[in-house]
Amino acid sequence: MDKILLLNGPNLNLLGQRQPEIYGSETLDDVVATCTALGAELGVEVDARQSNHEGVLVDWIQEARGDAAGIIINPGALSHTSVAILDALNAFEGPVMEVHISNIHKRERFRHHSYVSGRAEGVIAGFGTDGYGFAMRRIVAVLA
Amino acid sequence: MDKILLLNGPNLNLLGQRQPEIYGSETLDDVVATCTALGAELGVEVDARQSNHEGVLVDWIQEARGDAAGIIINPGALSHTSVAILDALNAFEGPVMEVHISNIHKRERFRHHSYVSGRAEGVIAGFGTDGYGFAMRRIVAVLA
Amino acid sequence: MDKILLLNGPNLNLLGQRQPEIYGSETLDDVVATCTALGAELGVEVDARQSNHEGVLVDWIQEARGDAAGIIINPGALSHTSVAILDALNAFEGPVMEVHISNIHKRERFRHHSYVSGRAEGVIAGFGTDGYGFAMRRIVAVLA
Amino acid sequence: MDKILLLNGPNLNLLGQRQPEIYGSETLDDVVATCTALGAELGVEVDARQSNHEGVLVDWIQEARGDAAGIIINPGALSHTSVAILDALNAFEGPVMEVHISNIHKRERFRHHSYVSGRAEGVIAGFGTDGYGFAMRRIVAVLA
Amino acid sequence: MDKILLLNGPNLNLLGQRQPEIYGSETLDDVVATCTALGAELGVEVDARQSNHEGVLVDWIQEARGDAAGIIINPGALSHTSVAILDALNAFEGPVMEVHISNIHKRERFRHHSYVSGRAEGVIAGFGTDGYGFAMRRIVAVLA
Amino acid sequence: MDKILLLNGPNLNLLGQRQPEIYGSETLDDVVATCTALGAELGVEVDARQSNHEGVLVDWIQEARGDAAGIIINPGALSHTSVAILDALNAFEGPVMEVHISNIHKRERFRHHSYVSGRAEGVIAGFGTDGYGFAMRRIVAVLA
Amino acid sequence: MDKILLLNGPNLNLLGQRQPEIYGSETLDDVVATCTALGAELGVEVDARQSNHEGVLVDWIQEARGDAAGIIINPGALSHTSVAILDALNAFEGPVMEVHISNIHKRERFRHHSYVSGRAEGVIAGFGTDGYGFAMRRIVAVLA
Amino acid sequence: MDKILLLNGPNLNLLGQRQPEIYGSETLDDVVATCTALGAELGVEVDARQSNHEGVLVDWIQEARGDAAGIIINPGALSHTSVAILDALNAFEGPVMEVHISNIHKRERFRHHSYVSGRAEGVIAGFGTDGYGFAMRRIVAVLA
Amino acid sequence: MDKILLLNGPNLNLLGQRQPEIYGSETLDDVVATCTALGAELGVEVDARQSNHEGVLVDWIQEARGDAAGIIINPGALSHTSVAILDALNAFEGPVMEVHISNIHKRERFRHHSYVSGRAEGVIAGFGTDGYGFAMRRIVAVLA
Amino acid sequence: MDKILLLNGPNLNLLGQRQPEIYGSETLDDVVATCTALGAELGVEVDARQSNHEGVLVDWIQEARGDAAGIIINPGALSHTSVAILDALNAFEGPVMEVHISNIHKRERFRHHSYVSGRAEGVIAGFGTDGYGFAMRRIVAVLA
Amino acid sequence: MDKILLLNGPNLNLLGQRQPEIYGSETLDDVVATCTALGAELGVEVDARQSNHEGVLVDWIQEARGDAAGIIINPGALSHTSVAILDALNAFEGPVMEVHISNIHKRERFRHHSYVSGRAEGVIAGFGTDGYGFAMRRIVAVLA
Amino acid sequence: MDKILLLNGPNLNLLGQRQPEIYGSETLDDVVATCTALGAELGVEVDARQSNHEGVLVDWIQEARGDAAGIIINPGALSHTSVAILDALNAFEGPVMEVHISNIHKRERFRHHSYVSGRAEGVIAGFGTDGYGFAMRRIVAVLA
Repeated sequence: MDKILLLNGPNLNLLGQRQPEIYGSETLDDVVATCTALGAELGVEVDARQSNHEGVLVDWIQEARGDAAGIIINPGALSHTSVAILDALNAFEGPVMEVHISNIHKRERFRHHSYVSGRAEGVIAGFGTDGYGFAMRRIVAVLA
Repeated sequence: MDKILLLNGPNLNLLGQRQPEIYGSETLDDVVATCTALGAELGVEVDARQSNHEGVLVDWIQEARGDAAGIIINPGALSHTSVAILDALNAFEGPVMEVHISNIHKRERFRHHSYVSGRAEGVIAGFGTDGYGFAMRRIVAVLA
Repeated sequence: MDKILLLNGPNLNLLGQRQPEIYGSETLDDVVATCTALGAELGVEVDARQSNHEGVLVDWIQEARGDAAGIIINPGALSHTSVAILDALNAFEGPVMEVHISNIHKRERFRHHSYVSGRAEGVIAGFGTDGYGFAMRRIVAVLA
Repeated sequence: MDKILLLNGPNLNLLGQRQPEIYGSETLDDVVATCTALGAELGVEVDARQSNHEGVLVDWIQEARGDAAGIIINPGALSHTSVAILDALNAFEGPVMEVHISNIHKRERFRHHSYVSGRAEGVIAGFGTDGYGFAMRRIVAVLA
Repeated sequence: MDKILLLNGPNLNLLGQRQPEIYGSETLDDVVATCTALGAELGVEVDARQSNHEGVLVDWIQEARGDAAGIIINPGALSHTSVAILDALNAFEGPVMEVHISNIHKRERFRHHSYVSGRAEGVIAGFGTDGYGFAMRRIVAVLA
Repeated sequence: MDKILLLNGPNLNLLGQRQPEIYGSETLDDVVATCTALGAELGVEVDARQSNHEGVLVDWIQEARGDAAGIIINPGALSHTSVAILDALNAFEGPVMEVHISNIHKRERFRHHSYVSGRAEGVIAGFGTDGYGFAMRRIVAVLA
Repeated sequence: MDKILLLNGPNLNLLGQRQPEIYGSETLDDVVATCTALGAELGVEVDARQSNHEGVLVDWIQEARGDAAGIIINPGALSHTSVAILDALNAFEGPVMEVHISNIHKRERFRHHSYVSGRAEGVIAGFGTDGYGFAMRRIVAVLA
Repeated sequence: MDKILLLNGPNLNLLGQRQPEIYGSETLDDVVATCTALGAELGVEVDARQSNHEGVLVDWIQEARGDAAGIIINPGALSHTSVAILDALNAFEGPVMEVHISNIHKRERFRHHSYVSGRAEGVIAGFGTDGYGFAMRRIVAVLA
Repeated sequence: MDKILLLNGPNLNLLGQRQPEIYGSETLDDVVATCTALGAELGVEVDARQSNHEGVLVDWIQEARGDAAGIIINPGALSHTSVAILDALNAFEGPVMEVHISNIHKRERFRHHSYVSGRAEGVIAGFGTDGYGFAMRRIVAVLA
Repeated sequence: MDKILLLNGPNLNLLGQRQPEIYGSETLDDVVATCTALGAELGVEVDARQSNHEGVLVDWIQEARGDAAGIIINPGALSHTSVAILDALNAFEGPVMEVHISNIHKRERFRHHSYVSGRAEGVIAGFGTDGYGFAMRRIVAVLA
Repeated sequence: MDKILLLNGPNLNLLGQRQPEIYGSETLDDVVATCTALGAELGVEVDARQSNHEGVLVDWIQEARGDAAGIIINPGALSHTSVAILDALNAFEGPVMEVHISNIHKRERFRHHSYVSGRAEGVIAGFGTDGYGFAMRRIVAVLA
Repeated sequence: MDKILLLNGPNLNLLGQRQPEIYGSETLDDVVATCTALGAELGVEVDARQSNHEGVLVDWIQEARGDAAGIIINPGALSHTSVAILDALNAFEGPVMEVHISNIHKRERFRHHSYVSGRAEGVIAGFGTDGYGFAMRRIVAVLA
């Protein structure tokens, strides 16, 4: 059974608690539960992790080499600033899907560019937490 | 029954025929058939149109005012150059979802910016033709 | 009797219907009626047209060559993107006045530049629909 | 009877004397006389002043607080350089109309941006000295 | 016998009438006649069309797929603004030659960049209407 | 007893009257009184002046040479536009502290840069009128 | 008794040891002791922490939600590069004061912009270690 | 006998007193004396004035119209920020020579551009106070 | 008989030897032979020279003053960097045609700008070595 | 015996495993072994460490103060984004050599700038893993 | 007797022949004769040279080390493009004066920046050929 | 025996004489002697040349085609300005190593970019004259 690494970056552990007008009221646990159930339905295992630390995210992406079939990542604020995460993803062999809960193109200018987008197969933004599920469905289709 | 206007801009009528390594082999008719069927399942009517003419797209968006509940649009090349489409969408009351078949962030720099993204609720790029279906599901959820 | 071509670009047919906080509640028909009456008073014929299509606007400006004495144009969104309209106006012999109902300098940055302004004799923005009348008065004075 | 403060900035005292191909041959006294007469017709008092000194213009705008109903200003060269005048206008409660005799968009690039335009209700440029009268008419309409 | 599509964009129907100091006095009919005769000599059929409408040009380029052997295009003002034409040309299999009658590098800065140049095999500018003939000769040589 | 020159630039005479949501409700007289009292406590004389005129501020800074021990300045709008004030401060021997009542980094982009900051020992912004007192305390500490 | 979180970012543990001509000779322990004493005087508890790790700073800011009344932060080098810290601060409900010991506007250009400044109520730079005390006093005043 | 207006802008009254490593030790009185003597030798009258006020400089330049034969100006810091002085000089009929005592191209980047240079016949920088004399000699030659 | 100076800049002596996928397999001698023959046919003498030295090219252009009727130049890499060649061409009285063998608009960004294009009557790029012949034909037509 | 701190940043632990066409097939252990042996030969001790965490790298650089004689650092992706590492290096007294295995100037634009280069004595890029040895030799020479 | 090296760059050998409306009608020989005579008067020997070759100018500047007391240079077009000349001047010990016959600030934008200006003691532009004499006088004064 | 072309550009003949605080005290003859000896040890012949002339350097690089196995080049100031050298190197088949004696990233901004770096296999800067030897060792390793 293929494993999908579901990574969330800085401050996404606060999902449902901070700025609900931007991020909605669902929590990260809700998201993980939904994705895990959807994974079961789609025939993939979901390994969900969150960290506020760039280095930890890089460590986890490295560990996914030869272990996970694909990565779904919401890099949060690190989308805009981390070349290290981009490089770790470049060293990963499988497909990568990038998720942003809010539409980053409607926010401050510095949120319009994501280093990860230059590596990801697909990018979804502003679909709320539904974006994770769609990324799950797509990555499974790509892997098929 | 809510109507969803499904708009495709310039050159998307060639879907499945041009640059399949970027856009895949499914045709626009296939996409429309899939979305119509999905719409039936989700309880919405799909009104699908394509034009290579900016003015025609503006006309259609204007006609959707007070008629359609939401708009899913792949503006194609006009994403990057048309303020007129943005303004027409600004005059539309319902939600707007923006779809790009390829990941525009991996292509030429002038394709990284879309005027429509500043208006759309959500943006999905690089999910192939699956993006239309996900946009359908999301817009129905938003309208619910 | 001199003819004045009064051109309105994309989405101005929605005048009075969309974003009244920006554009006011008068309709385009109201504007045309007011200008026609004013034209009668000033001794000029008003030929008023609106299109959402850049190409149609270019066609009309070309037809005005040797036919109209002057052009009053609100290019709408095409102000910011159309070199074709600029070129057509460059091929027109008479005076050109540019009208924007809202003050474009208070809106998004991409609305601050208009290709037409480099050709027009005068530019008026943020005077609401009164701007059309003032442009009428001025163009007649210039033609006198 | 409402008072309108009619302000002219640096070098506008030379109106009719310098670069007549750009600014025309009417003098500032002519403009003031025309506006005063028009004010009488429209039921407003015109208080016209000119200074080459940014500080004096700021002083006068401050004095207009609670005294004048609206301000018509041709800031001249200070349009492009004075944040102090912008701030003084921000502290004024009434409407502001900005007038440029020439079409600043046809001149050097540094004349294309005006700090005052971000505060003014309306901006008129390239209408010659007629622009003052149109600004008078508009400000009275807005105040009505 | 190979067909060459000879496309002219906005305002080129005015050739010989507008700004003769820039564009010369030959008309578009003259150009077409010259190219048709030259085509006969070179053994190719010339299909010449002109439109002021970006969408029409896109339609025509799409129709040339599988029909014409090559395209010679003077996109006029759309050179600088149309990604849609670039995309249609990207979907065309044969060679493309870009012609500008005037030397666009001596004119306003916004005329220095052409989206089409990134797709065309060759670009010729400032050779007057002779440029069309040279493009004819070159495209036939390339096709040989 | 050391003298501190306390300078306020354009529009700060309106303190407490304009935009209280940005600048608070304390007046400039209140600020001066507070600073004078604090100066007495700290053993320095406060010489407080305000002008809307760049030239007057330059004159006063020049007069402070050899007379005042330090300068506390809130240049207001001139922060962003006046090289003349910077040069006058460069000709002053003592320490300079720059005060902004509001946090200029949260406002329009053109307010983010201050010429004076490249000369001042310290910059305080967004501390309301408390900023003056803290600048007083710091300059006395630096002079000690 | 309100708690104030006093955060210091990378390399501020070296305070008093590195580049004393820029940062002075007081150590971070001195600063914490002074602030703790001042806190006692002002009736607030000071919780002082320092880390060289962006992720740790984000963790601490998150923990302050619902626990601390305000945050005083010197983000050090992360001021210029960390959107993650900005986002964590955005999720914090109370006031934030930003402190820089040196005047960052006199140093390299990349030090002139701080992401935190767009969130902080106030910013103080170049007041040496006195800046912390002034931020303490101000945050207590704001909280009062 | 032709009159030459010799204008000095902000802070040049401090010549010889401030930053002698940049500006030298000669005073403005010395410069005026030297220029007056040289004027006598060259057969022109020198009318020397200095002000820290942009408005005063504009006033004086206006007064020179029809009165002085030429203007030598060291606009000091206003070189880089004053369009008003440029406009006043544009309204003056005679030749203008621009003098900078220091080589502004070796100093901060914002000192490299002078609005006046686009109007002046000649510009001399970094020749110390000798530059005034050379400008005298040249303007007399030009006037001859 | 008019003389045409045919200049080739750095590295064009390697034509046919380096990067044939960009420059083709014809040598510079082939090009010169073809142009000389064509010149004979068109009634002009061809004086062909190549140098890798900017200064030599400048010398030769100077010598063409009063000697050659026109210049055809492929400045090679110096197109993008040499103002000296532009100035020499500015001092030449006759027409100038600029040739690039490859389409410089499809290559690195720094190759998109040519100083010579602002002086040349016409520019041809991407027509392979055919471009020289077309430039010959055009310059003769212009000289006629 | 002098100690050299040999630091490697994010993803360099994957050396020999990821993108061998860019980074070669040697592992980090190989590099460390080679450098240690070379160090023995040159009379210095090598303390080699690698981390994916910016904060850990900052910690280690701080610990090197007063302990190591010099630092050789390959900051990996953090070269382009970390001011914190630059500041830590600024607080280190000894020489710093920067190593990049690939030639970063041939890669994406954002890899062309390194904050560390403004601090390092020397920078070597594109010498493969040989670069570490050359940096060792040079730092020993500098320390001698 | 001190020697002054008087260097002129590309195309200045055409002085008096090309574009007299910009450069005047005096020839370079005239300039050299005037400067030589002036040198005799001032007690310095003038060694005047001109070349269209950057490399030759660099050679000559190198030869001036230890031989000439100062350099007066009009680098012509190389002002804007040659770092090599700047470096050679950096290696020269004596004063350098930069002369431009025309006012480069009134010409194309790329002529506004000169690499040499960052090295020269003084810069004179737009004084016609008089500029050479003034540079002579100044350099002798500086050397005194 | 493979030949290595060792090229040095403008002003490097002054090595050891100019700005020793930047370039050290070793002369170019010393460098050549060291490299020749090292070449003998490594089994390659060293052909060392220096010129201040861009064209001469281009000539020599062209001559190296089919003659030398690799090129080590310190282009000096031409690094930043010469596309012609880049093109010549592009036409050379073997490896290229770029050497800068000083760390160009610590100097003026215009020295941070080198055209040659986009072609070279490796770049070494700030290693003093040791850089040549390391480049020798590396190029031999690459050629092995």
